[in-house]
Amino acid sequence: MTERRQQRFDEVLQKRQPTLTVVFENVHDAHNISAVIRSCDAVGVMQAHGIYYGRTVFPPLGEKSSASARKWVDVQLHQTVDECYGHLRSRGFAIYTTHMSNTAKSLYDLDLTQNIALVFGNEHDGVSEEACSKADGNFLIPQMGMTQSLNISVACAVSLFEAFRQRNAVGMYNKPALSESELAALRTDWFENK
Amino acid sequence: MTERRQQRFDEVLQKRQPTLTVVFENVHDAHNISAVIRSCDAVGVMQAHGIYYGRTVFPPLGEKSSASARKWVDVQLHQTVDECYGHLRSRGFAIYTTHMSNTAKSLYDLDLTQNIALVFGNEHDGVSEEACSKADGNFLIPQMGMTQSLNISVACAVSLFEAFRQRNAVGMYNKPALSESELAALRTDWFENK
Repeated sequence: MTERRQQRFDEVLQKRQPTLTVVFENVHDAHNISAVIRSCDAVGVMQAHGIYYGRTVFPPLGEKSSASARKWVDVQLHQTVDECYGHLRSRGFAIYTTHMSNTAKSLYDLDLTQNIALVFGNEHDGVSEEACSKADGNFLIPQMGMTQSLNISVACAVSLFEAFRQRNAVGMYNKPALSESELAALRTDWFENK
Repeated sequence: MTERRQQRFDEVLQKRQPTLTVVFENVHDAHNISAVIRSCDAVGVMQAHGIYYGRTVFPPLGEKSSASARKWVDVQLHQTVDECYGHLRSRGFAIYTTHMSNTAKSLYDLDLTQNIALVFGNEHDGVSEEACSKADGNFLIPQMGMTQSLNISVACAVSLFEAFRQRNAVGMYNKPALSESELAALRTDWFENK
């Protein structure tokens, strides 16, 4: 049993993608955040980021399934856009916001195999002007219908699975992105603490 | 105003994809169904299908946004798998269920440019054995994480947007799939009734 669990950890850790992450800005719906974290886990995102300022707070994620995905994806909270972007840039991430604009690229024209952070806005206002203007670019998910809004958990899943598709196509899930020592440290941490 | 609205109808109708549809089997959560319908509209699905039997019923879709997407996507309900599959097969659809199994193909290896119906199961039991065994094939969305379940609205969106990507890549959104007379009839219907 223990050996099987350790083997499962190894399989998953070898596919983790430290060069892919998401940022959610002032998202207050716990169901949406839970779904975002589940999608992160599914494609191998190790750490997601939240930016919370003003009156919005990171909600308690009570749901069992979310708690379970949250065990495997670290969520780091930031109080300002600058703090979050500074953290990401110091780690080499290009930052792209999801924002309808004339200069937005299609998701399908983005190179999602690069070191990249995708920023999603909250349910009512979308990504803030500040977060957009300080990013490296905007992208949008093409929509061909009469209605023009996808739920944040849907938009995030569609974007992350396109990243999965691109990364899988170039073999990024076939060999570990983490070093032997990083893998060993995480294996121990998961085994002892999860 | 009227002219602009008609122009918008034309734009959307010219991108409609009558050869792509989804089936949801015994899905009872109104939020999930609403999100499925919004994703359908976004990629140009004209008609979605529900199969309801036993104690599960098609829920009232009260939410404003869902009502709005539902205006643009017809939902046809069926009482048995045979009735639904018979309807789809008589219209030339290949039928694929989402079901974890040894013989399941990856979503990304499916040809989603063909005449294809994608079947999603309900929140607790997934797609029924009957619906799986009577389908033309199974597929799964690859998952690389510790948790192994995506919400049905997320799974459906990821699948439909992969269909969008494949169809867009071969130009299926560049020229109308509907005939001139079908377009004219729908344009009139939308203009008079929506």
